[in-house]
Amino acid sequence: MSKFKVAMIQMAVRKSKSDNVAKAVKFITEASSAGAHIITLPEFFNSSDEAEPIPGPSTQALSAAAISNSVYIVGGSIPEQDGNKIFNTCAVFCPTGEMIAKHRKIHLFDIDIPGKITFEESEDFSPGDKLTIFKTPYCDVGVGICYDIRFAEMAQIYADRGCKLLVYPGEFSMATGPKHWEVLQRLRAVDNQVYVATASRARNTQSGYVAWGHSSVVDPWGDVISMTDEKESIVYADIDLTKLETARWILPLKQHRRQDLYLSSSLNMDKIIRPQ
Amino acid sequence: MSKFKVAMIQMAVRKSKSDNVAKAVKFITEASSAGAHIITLPEFFNSSDEAEPIPGPSTQALSAAAISNSVYIVGGSIPEQDGNKIFNTCAVFCPTGEMIAKHRKIHLFDIDIPGKITFEESEDFSPGDKLTIFKTPYCDVGVGICYDIRFAEMAQIYADRGCKLLVYPGEFSMATGPKHWEVLQRLRAVDNQVYVATASRARNTQSGYVAWGHSSVVDPWGDVISMTDEKESIVYADIDLTKLETARWILPLKQHRRQDLYLSSSLNMDKIIRPQ
Repeated sequence: MSKFKVAMIQMAVRKSKSDNVAKAVKFITEASSAGAHIITLPEFFNSSDEAEPIPGPSTQALSAAAISNSVYIVGGSIPEQDGNKIFNTCAVFCPTGEMIAKHRKIHLFDIDIPGKITFEESEDFSPGDKLTIFKTPYCDVGVGICYDIRFAEMAQIYADRGCKLLVYPGEFSMATGPKHWEVLQRLRAVDNQVYVATASRARNTQSGYVAWGHSSVVDPWGDVISMTDEKESIVYADIDLTKLETARWILPLKQHRRQDLYLSSSLNMDKIIRPQ
Repeated sequence: MSKFKVAMIQMAVRKSKSDNVAKAVKFITEASSAGAHIITLPEFFNSSDEAEPIPGPSTQALSAAAISNSVYIVGGSIPEQDGNKIFNTCAVFCPTGEMIAKHRKIHLFDIDIPGKITFEESEDFSPGDKLTIFKTPYCDVGVGICYDIRFAEMAQIYADRGCKLLVYPGEFSMATGPKHWEVLQRLRAVDNQVYVATASRARNTQSGYVAWGHSSVVDPWGDVISMTDEKESIVYADIDLTKLETARWILPLKQHRRQDLYLSSSLNMDKIIRPQ
């Protein structure tokens, strides 16, 4: 099981939630027909306006699609209503339709670039308080949503816990996307010697939040092995975990880490005066 | 003092240690004349064959050059003899000639890419056991040598301790340079919202270790603001710390970190079965 295929669905999302969910299911069926084993939807694939509980109509549709296609589905994210709180939540389904993980976005995107973008996600959403790993027959997979990818610690913990694939549904903006979307994926991959995969919404210039797109898959050497542009499409990639093992064998970063120093943060601050 | 100029000396290193040191001093004088405040030499600027103690002839020449040019010198590295051990060591001098820091490379480069490069630095060198920060009137500076840059934790600690510039004398190989040299610098900068600067030896195809070159300076947005090719040259960059403050104000990554989660590594591993 060291080889498997992932599909990252870059879909355009419109107003109607039921239409969006139906389109997601159609894309899942297409990706499954093309041989994908793990299929990932984008952040807010069902819309970002109307919250619902989990389980609820959107995630039940994903569960059914997982069964009918016999695939793993990383359900991008939906606005999840839980009591009086709303979370940005990714539900993950296995081929028998069970929800095997539920990741609530931990790092909320509060940004202010004057004249370019102002966005206060924490006005509408509550943050999650757990990291999320799910198991597959291929490997363990770590989940983050969009802004979560900026936090190196999260990816490090996933890799330390044995994840070989990190999946980030997410959509960077037109301000941050061109600058950082690709480099962040590449370095999470290089630093942790894992595969990194992202699924963005397709660009919709009519939307209040215009997505950069460019869903991608990056290998453990940091090479982008598959990437699309801003339009609706499916990004496929063949994952080969022997490539990951080779990278780690050639360059054993994990064994070379000096946790003894990082934890003590022992600093050489002595001033040495006037050497002869 | 929020604006200052750095110079990264990409010099070709030959057999004669005294010639190499004399050339380094010549480059320092040139960079100082061009207005540089902090001047960095490459890893093993004086040769990699013949160790000497610190203080010793090579570092005494740097101390004198710091005084005569009234600049900070990050002395690349030299093979440092200390008792029966040899370290890969960077000595840092302030404008009055004092050695204000001494960084011994922590992470030694042991790599085996069949047919491309095999290198066992730990056969000849002992690892350092301290991280190193030095103070300047401009900002605190964190020091790493070459392979040290691959370890995200080290850069994180430097940034957490207030460093706004990370300096890495180093020389990636022709195997790892094209793949990772630039992306590592960019992401250390993006993740930590600091300036990152590197000084490599110029490429010498007659050498046993052929360097990629491409000494660079990267700003806190991850943009490469100055980079050279493989030939001998000086890379200059004007550092503007207000740019760093702006990046952190727009995108307050440090405040958004969830150390509570990273430290507990609380993981959401519960399997939720058959959602309704």
